[in-house]
Amino acid sequence: MTSTARTDGAQPTDDRKAPGRPRSARADEAITEAMLDLLAEGSSFEALTIEAVAARAGVGKATIYRRWPNKESMLVDAIARLKGDPPVPPGTSLREDLVTMLRPVGALRSTRAGQIMPCLIPELRRSPELQAVFQRAMEPRREALRKVLRYWIERGELRSDVDIELMQAMLAGPLLAKNVLFWNPDLPREGLPERLVDAVLAGIGVR
Amino acid sequence: MTSTARTDGAQPTDDRKAPGRPRSARADEAITEAMLDLLAEGSSFEALTIEAVAARAGVGKATIYRRWPNKESMLVDAIARLKGDPPVPPGTSLREDLVTMLRPVGALRSTRAGQIMPCLIPELRRSPELQAVFQRAMEPRREALRKVLRYWIERGELRSDVDIELMQAMLAGPLLAKNVLFWNPDLPREGLPERLVDAVLAGIGVR
Repeated sequence: MTSTARTDGAQPTDDRKAPGRPRSARADEAITEAMLDLLAEGSSFEALTIEAVAARAGVGKATIYRRWPNKESMLVDAIARLKGDPPVPPGTSLREDLVTMLRPVGALRSTRAGQIMPCLIPELRRSPELQAVFQRAMEPRREALRKVLRYWIERGELRSDVDIELMQAMLAGPLLAKNVLFWNPDLPREGLPERLVDAVLAGIGVR
Repeated sequence: MTSTARTDGAQPTDDRKAPGRPRSARADEAITEAMLDLLAEGSSFEALTIEAVAARAGVGKATIYRRWPNKESMLVDAIARLKGDPPVPPGTSLREDLVTMLRPVGALRSTRAGQIMPCLIPELRRSPELQAVFQRAMEPRREALRKVLRYWIERGELRSDVDIELMQAMLAGPLLAKNVLFWNPDLPREGLPERLVDAVLAGIGVR
């Protein structure tokens, strides 16, 4: 746990009211951390209550409701906190940018992230509402990769008719399968982002 | 539940003793079904006991231990039963074979499969032993895809130096990410196997 304000590292969402003073940001952080702790300890999202989060964070329920309308919008911020910001592409070359963007894909940064993220999957299957929340939390990372592809299309390094969503799938999908779903032990995790980028660039889209 | 013998649809494993009479195969089936039912009802694999499976199947513990040495080896057969056999490639063309092999990837065929398979993921993260069991259960499907790639390499339709594991990852990874991990709603599930096969074949490996 860091002592920096929560808003430094997370994607702001429409649902959350803009933080005011630093004290407010600290409360945001404590509440989000409390939610993540409860999930990491094995609570399902379904079973999680605002009461339990408030009790763990040492705040009143009203303090939470002033910030988030419901636990779904809290989860968006909690996932953003867990995942951190998308990487910043160096802009030096298409290859380096893609490798930089792909390195963290599916790599669960902390033990806590490793406990929480896979446990959400069965819940996503049960709840379309939670799926929508999950997509809202994950979308900034996909959009960051799309921006890199568009940047290099504009510079003529990728064909203008490249299928951005499909290319993204061929780059990120294998890493998600490998890192989250334990796919294929015969494919080493080490160096996989580089191998994928090279195979996709040799194949599709490069002028 | 079907009335066919369990051995018709499942991969035999080294741990399981060969079934003798049809009556024995029916007991195998009842036991495996009982295990799948308990998992689908929310039991974690960790919490599952041979006693509970025996009680649900209406057999004695000894009947189970005559067939499987432990619950891990039961799970290999249970997953094989859940997933069904890998598809049989038509052998008409590289493209058709790949599309046929890819259609079921990550597509959880039944509600029960959809309940059980994602719930295993958090347990895999906790247990290297369970990971090994899972790999043993999933490996026949990967091997079936490899065989298709080798078949078309022999016939000169794929370059002999194609990276089989990487190609498999680029084909299967996006489908697993999409179907199991709810990745990217902007990428339609419909037609994805065909689009991936076409993109990969246009890019890597094709003569």
